[in-house]
Amino acid sequence: MNKIVMIGAGNVATHLSKALAGAGMDISQVYSRTAEHAAQLAKHVGADYTDDIDCLLTDAYAYIFAVKDDVIATLAKAVADRVGDNHLFVHTSGSTPMTCLKEATKHYGVIYPLQTFSKDREVNFKEIPCFIEAVDEDAEGMVRMLAESVSDRVVAMCSEQRRLMHLAAVWSCNFVNHCYDVADGIMQACDLPFELLLPLIDETARKVHELSPRKAQTGPAVRYDRRIIDAHLGLLAGQPQLADIYERMSKSIKEQSEKSE
Amino acid sequence: MNKIVMIGAGNVATHLSKALAGAGMDISQVYSRTAEHAAQLAKHVGADYTDDIDCLLTDAYAYIFAVKDDVIATLAKAVADRVGDNHLFVHTSGSTPMTCLKEATKHYGVIYPLQTFSKDREVNFKEIPCFIEAVDEDAEGMVRMLAESVSDRVVAMCSEQRRLMHLAAVWSCNFVNHCYDVADGIMQACDLPFELLLPLIDETARKVHELSPRKAQTGPAVRYDRRIIDAHLGLLAGQPQLADIYERMSKSIKEQSEKSE
Repeated sequence: MNKIVMIGAGNVATHLSKALAGAGMDISQVYSRTAEHAAQLAKHVGADYTDDIDCLLTDAYAYIFAVKDDVIATLAKAVADRVGDNHLFVHTSGSTPMTCLKEATKHYGVIYPLQTFSKDREVNFKEIPCFIEAVDEDAEGMVRMLAESVSDRVVAMCSEQRRLMHLAAVWSCNFVNHCYDVADGIMQACDLPFELLLPLIDETARKVHELSPRKAQTGPAVRYDRRIIDAHLGLLAGQPQLADIYERMSKSIKEQSEKSE
Repeated sequence: MNKIVMIGAGNVATHLSKALAGAGMDISQVYSRTAEHAAQLAKHVGADYTDDIDCLLTDAYAYIFAVKDDVIATLAKAVADRVGDNHLFVHTSGSTPMTCLKEATKHYGVIYPLQTFSKDREVNFKEIPCFIEAVDEDAEGMVRMLAESVSDRVVAMCSEQRRLMHLAAVWSCNFVNHCYDVADGIMQACDLPFELLLPLIDETARKVHELSPRKAQTGPAVRYDRRIIDAHLGLLAGQPQLADIYERMSKSIKEQSEKSE
């Protein structure tokens, strides 16, 4: 009766499955087109696994699609062909509208956990904001129950807002991490350990708990210290792509700071 | 005998003066060309203040120049003309070579605290890595004593390494904070509170304590999910400068991830 099938075995599927299983939910089966990945995750959560859609359980109440955005709709149709259209289908994507599930079933929704998941790193799912959406009240009840079993921060949100929030997440996580990566490369080039930057990285993140990022900005770009900016561009001369990003980021910082003056 | 004069009253001067005073050092005088700023900081650390170089104390053992990079050399010369060349001169800049002080005095060095300082935010100076350099052993002894009085993480470093580390700091702090600022703008545009992003921001920073940034990378760029990237570029169409940075960051993430495969 309370069976859940997880479609996908990547980072989101893994962390969400573990959290659901940890909350006492019954993940009965994991599907991935790569049997090995399905098996690995299934083992963690005490589930069966399959790489064959024709072997999917047909009596689960929810099928959660934690797969790449561009395969959600097609895969949902294929799963519905096997299991029928009387189950709850949920996807976990930030940028995909909820309606991409409507061709597959009448009962659908979204649980979008806003976090950066890596396989080898545990996270405390309870703290992760989960944004939910559902096609009707019945579906919303089920989606909310699932989301609240794993997270203390469940917020209803429409597809359009979720899409913009995903864009904000790319800036505040993926691009931030790439900045760390560029810094790591610079440190390596002069034989310095990346660890020396960690207090700075931590304080930069902590600061925006109290100050707006606009107010928290420091450094040569916000002062528009052209001498230092040019010296830094000189140091990046061998990496024109990074020099280019450096110049554009500095200009953008300057313009934003002028706007708020 | 143990008098220190602080030249400058900006963010670095403020936090460093407070830390030195807190460690029992005698900040006797604060100089700023803006009397009001000098007075403000002087009040905090129980010092005199002046906006007139001709009123500088002449019997301090150390003069610390926490001022904009491009005025350090000129100001140091002017101070030496007033106080003589027998004192320790120290600057606090990441990108300025130590030798910019050599025209002013025989005894000089650098204390570069690697942190982002804002006036309204207290920091724990003890945790801040401080990178020191000095012209000779005598000066190094004094510089180290000053640095170790405020920080538990004092590391000797030459001007060239410090210059590169400052560049790494711009990426891992200033550019990171600008990414937060862009995300804040996106959230505001869809009436969502920036706070929703904080768990993601915190985890992104925590992750690189354990994984290298290269390994920690997630998101549409590292998967090079062109459909999402193009959708995000569409959302940024009204801000061509940000769209441009988005495209270049995504390409750079993709290329770095291909390199490490």
